[in-house]
Amino acid sequence: MTVSKSYHVAVVGATGAVGTKMLETLEKRNFPIQSLKVLASSRSVDKEIQFRGKTYKIEEATPEAFEGIDIALFSAGGSVSEKLAPEAAKRGAIAIDNTSFFRMNPEVPLVVPEVNPQDIEKHKGIIANPNCSTIQMVVALKPIHDKYKIKRIIVSTYQAVSGTGYKAIEELTQQSQEVVTGFPTQPKVYPHQIAFNVLPQIDVFEENGFTKEEMKMINETQKIFGDDSIEVTATCVRVPVLNGHSESVYIETEKPFEVSDIYSLLSQGEGIKVIDDTENLLYPLPTEATGQGDTLVGRIRKDLYNPHGLNMWVVADNLLKGAALNAVQIAEKLIK
Amino acid sequence: MTVSKSYHVAVVGATGAVGTKMLETLEKRNFPIQSLKVLASSRSVDKEIQFRGKTYKIEEATPEAFEGIDIALFSAGGSVSEKLAPEAAKRGAIAIDNTSFFRMNPEVPLVVPEVNPQDIEKHKGIIANPNCSTIQMVVALKPIHDKYKIKRIIVSTYQAVSGTGYKAIEELTQQSQEVVTGFPTQPKVYPHQIAFNVLPQIDVFEENGFTKEEMKMINETQKIFGDDSIEVTATCVRVPVLNGHSESVYIETEKPFEVSDIYSLLSQGEGIKVIDDTENLLYPLPTEATGQGDTLVGRIRKDLYNPHGLNMWVVADNLLKGAALNAVQIAEKLIK
Repeated sequence: MTVSKSYHVAVVGATGAVGTKMLETLEKRNFPIQSLKVLASSRSVDKEIQFRGKTYKIEEATPEAFEGIDIALFSAGGSVSEKLAPEAAKRGAIAIDNTSFFRMNPEVPLVVPEVNPQDIEKHKGIIANPNCSTIQMVVALKPIHDKYKIKRIIVSTYQAVSGTGYKAIEELTQQSQEVVTGFPTQPKVYPHQIAFNVLPQIDVFEENGFTKEEMKMINETQKIFGDDSIEVTATCVRVPVLNGHSESVYIETEKPFEVSDIYSLLSQGEGIKVIDDTENLLYPLPTEATGQGDTLVGRIRKDLYNPHGLNMWVVADNLLKGAALNAVQIAEKLIK
Repeated sequence: MTVSKSYHVAVVGATGAVGTKMLETLEKRNFPIQSLKVLASSRSVDKEIQFRGKTYKIEEATPEAFEGIDIALFSAGGSVSEKLAPEAAKRGAIAIDNTSFFRMNPEVPLVVPEVNPQDIEKHKGIIANPNCSTIQMVVALKPIHDKYKIKRIIVSTYQAVSGTGYKAIEELTQQSQEVVTGFPTQPKVYPHQIAFNVLPQIDVFEENGFTKEEMKMINETQKIFGDDSIEVTATCVRVPVLNGHSESVYIETEKPFEVSDIYSLLSQGEGIKVIDDTENLLYPLPTEATGQGDTLVGRIRKDLYNPHGLNMWVVADNLLKGAALNAVQIAEKLIK
């Protein structure tokens, strides 16, 4: 990477739901950009996007496109990252990859800046951005894990369709209108109707009966915390929400805790906003989380039976903290 | 109760979402009815309903209305049951109450016919129908508990708005249209927007940070299984689904099990339909459960860490098995 104070940046997958948010986040956070390349598949070439009041033409993502690039943010699918992230790295760029392709690669750090920023420096040209549902969970659990050591996590998710992309947002919107007006619906993006329904499947099924999304939450949590002894069980569910993932998280700690201390740890936790005012019926909601960078935590309560057990409700904007913002935060740490 | 072969039946709250389903269920299952009284608050008096091709006028629910009644099904709110169920019982009727008012009363059996039919005979004039989210969970767990003894349950729910009543169905439908067409929404039935959102609150909050709905799942499960040692943790969440409650259920058993045996136990379990074909992406869905009396179970998988741990996904029609059908099934057992 050059030592200039501003950087040659590329965004790969710039027209997608996450790519768009990456550009918005770079703009909003005043990332020091000397030059910007917006890359996508050949389908999107010659489309235009606006960035800081300037118009950029989408260029085709090829190995050569990364010549002279310092930082490349990838969000164009696993196969694109597989092929092009090493090409970017080979040309001296650091690839920050939002796909799952490199996440469990032992040579690639998997980073949530609030949780394991120290892993960034171990990179060899590629840094992986974790799965959306994992990121918000580990942000919320980090201060608790540091003090009380988490041994067990049982999580059920309520995941928004925006995680699937623009087509899924369209499908939910259109199907909702169809159902309300009595027209038949025809699922395309999802295997079943998503409007007014919940689907207990995200990503494909694995041999062991868990989905790939569930296995991501299990494996990535261990890698990010650097602790293979944390036993995670996950059930990942798609709900008819446009944006914002929610999670019902139950944990067991090694050391006993007072719930008042959990409150104060979370309230001071980096990237966390506690919303837990049951008297005024305030708790984290996906509609509220949308557009925010913080991970919202509420419904914090001690288990009634296990003195080491704690329940909480964790919500975040899956396109921001769950994807684009986390990637830009990694870039910010990199240039520090 | 008279020993006649058909019965004088009253339905209290006959115009509500559950009351309507009670009448439909009595009709569909050919319950032996000699006479029917449809009762409601004074507001609904003189409205008419159809039953077996005959028109019935709604009468006001008063103590005297229960004279000569054998079986009275209540679903008109806790305060109505509190006042009138004892009046019905005093007049020789057996009250089957769908509200929460009597559920934890030690004098009142709390019955799911597939799980604890033996408790019916302990009644002293009132039998309570459990909470919707509890019923479907205990139906699914009964065959496992019988053989392997369940010690721990951690459940997160995905509950439909129909459980709140007709007004909530209207609110979700109307808000969905408003959001899709860009109009502002105004929550009335729920404290926050329910369309394209999830609300981690059902019923009111208690001192301990759990909601009343969550405490119902904890306490009623122990009472129905007759086992105070089962440690339940619940997080109850309202989702923008019209009808059909879903549950992500994690359990730990006392005895070790093979997951193949769990499959065969569930497949033979009373009132259970296993839908678990991950190859063809088939699993229980609220849209599929609607209109069915069975509790659907899928996503059955052994925990990856705890050999006594099991995950499953449980869906049922909350107005039928979760309310009206369960009440009618109790009545059927009563007259056997």
